[in-house]
Amino acid sequence: MTLQRAAAFAPSNIALTKYWGKRDETLNLPLAPSLSVTLAELGSLTVVQPEPELVEDVMILDGQPLDAAGMIKVRRVLDAVRQMAGSQVFAGLQSVNTVASARGLASSASAFAALALSASTAYGLDLDDAALSRLARTGSGSAARSVSGGYVLWQTGERADGYDSYAQTFRDAKHWPLRILVAQVLDGRKKVSSTLGMKQNRDSPLFAPWIELCHRDVRACQQAIDARDMTQLAAVVEGNALAMHATMMSSRPALLYWQPATLAVIHEVRRLRSEGVECCFTIDAGSSVVVLVAEQDARPVAESLGEIHGIEAVLQTRIGQGARLVEAHG
Amino acid sequence: MTLQRAAAFAPSNIALTKYWGKRDETLNLPLAPSLSVTLAELGSLTVVQPEPELVEDVMILDGQPLDAAGMIKVRRVLDAVRQMAGSQVFAGLQSVNTVASARGLASSASAFAALALSASTAYGLDLDDAALSRLARTGSGSAARSVSGGYVLWQTGERADGYDSYAQTFRDAKHWPLRILVAQVLDGRKKVSSTLGMKQNRDSPLFAPWIELCHRDVRACQQAIDARDMTQLAAVVEGNALAMHATMMSSRPALLYWQPATLAVIHEVRRLRSEGVECCFTIDAGSSVVVLVAEQDARPVAESLGEIHGIEAVLQTRIGQGARLVEAHG
Repeated sequence: MTLQRAAAFAPSNIALTKYWGKRDETLNLPLAPSLSVTLAELGSLTVVQPEPELVEDVMILDGQPLDAAGMIKVRRVLDAVRQMAGSQVFAGLQSVNTVASARGLASSASAFAALALSASTAYGLDLDDAALSRLARTGSGSAARSVSGGYVLWQTGERADGYDSYAQTFRDAKHWPLRILVAQVLDGRKKVSSTLGMKQNRDSPLFAPWIELCHRDVRACQQAIDARDMTQLAAVVEGNALAMHATMMSSRPALLYWQPATLAVIHEVRRLRSEGVECCFTIDAGSSVVVLVAEQDARPVAESLGEIHGIEAVLQTRIGQGARLVEAHG
Repeated sequence: MTLQRAAAFAPSNIALTKYWGKRDETLNLPLAPSLSVTLAELGSLTVVQPEPELVEDVMILDGQPLDAAGMIKVRRVLDAVRQMAGSQVFAGLQSVNTVASARGLASSASAFAALALSASTAYGLDLDDAALSRLARTGSGSAARSVSGGYVLWQTGERADGYDSYAQTFRDAKHWPLRILVAQVLDGRKKVSSTLGMKQNRDSPLFAPWIELCHRDVRACQQAIDARDMTQLAAVVEGNALAMHATMMSSRPALLYWQPATLAVIHEVRRLRSEGVECCFTIDAGSSVVVLVAEQDARPVAESLGEIHGIEAVLQTRIGQGARLVEAHG
């Protein structure tokens, strides 16, 4: 097969119902399905260049060599690609995140979706979205959802090898063009990673009912999206995020990702909605808050959130397309 | 029997493991046992004067006639007393709270414990602590724990009539003379009452595991108190409070009692403990935070909490005795 330099961009995604609980730690297979929206602009750009003279894979992330823990995951994806391509050539990789993880959005989802597309292209493969999603998932679970655009469903799957656990668009961005606001809360504490957090959380007595809840919430969330019903969407999206954080804070020791400003945004969004503004919030394993809002209300809501004590900035974006090639030379 | 004017003071109590879930709404029978400490100074003073010429019970609370909902509960206690005493005489009542509920401590626990003691004395009864606790419980569940002093256990009981569901001291205040700080957080929102909150919360998928957890936590908390072990106490007291709020926030619509300053205190107490300060927090169905702290660390912790943005004041008190008569004339 032809080896070539390839570059791909993949966007971040925001989970509307969460991925929090693995049935397989290595393959990143989830215990429950999850739903997300793919963002328009914010994400990762990754360039892969297979180089016959390299003796191992080398990756530069945001100008720095990638750490060992990250490199293990990257190699897992590259090894899978090389196996499919029948190649033993190592690669040089460069990746840039257009959103820093400190800004309230995780970078691993977009990073591994961009890697899946760029690496598979560089090694001469032409994978469909389902195959790319499976591949991205082996690097980081939520990356499965950053391959496709719009409203995305990641199905749990049942197989032990993960072949049926991948994400696909079920409604495109135009179906309901909500605006996305990211209310950034700075947190000086050392963050507990999602992988560690999920592990620590398994012992919580609330964990099993949380997983059951996710199965129900995905169905209710799909219905809300189909009907473009913000009241129903808010009930399930906020309820699911609160239940995840409830599950986190009930583990011992407690996983407390929230900061005071996190709660201030929660109360403000609830207050705004009680006044008729079409918006709802969600929170990942961190302290920043993401707000989904109807187009016409985006500006006043952003201004209102920006005035909250402890909010560093409010990013604005839209729902967009999935991972795409930005360059491919033979 | 002789009717007489009687006055009693009863203190507030702070639950170390919470009462959040009823198996009987009228008798206030809990689904799980709970543990508390009785406060030294803060509480309610209630005077009961049986008056043959009254055509119904009349009560003045903090200078105002008691509202209808409160009067129903007061009458429930008075009717039980009159039945035991074989009397049909109504009473005039006056009650003063030395701590307003807006200051972060519920007043119903101390109010109904004071009522149980003053009313039973006024109608000529001489009830032991178990009987007073049962009587107070019919007014407000947590009042069962304000009759006795020190470290108090309220056992669930099994009987449908509640005869075996009452609270008793299991360690006195001298056993471990911790200081109690109340970090007051003002909350302009209309508060959801505990009774309503518990009802709304029953549908949460996390509710059943929460109740199971309480049974385990009570045992672990007793062990921590017996051993005067702050590390173990913190794990169970904070874990129990966080699990209760987790259960609350996972109900739909969510019960969110916390304010930004609530979280700020949580983080500060965890930080202080990580630096070797012997303290832990708990939070009732409200936004204020109660901190238990070793005597020698009380002052610096109070100062540190007082500096937090959104904390109105920090009350300081000790663990003290239970309900007591302050006056009784034939």
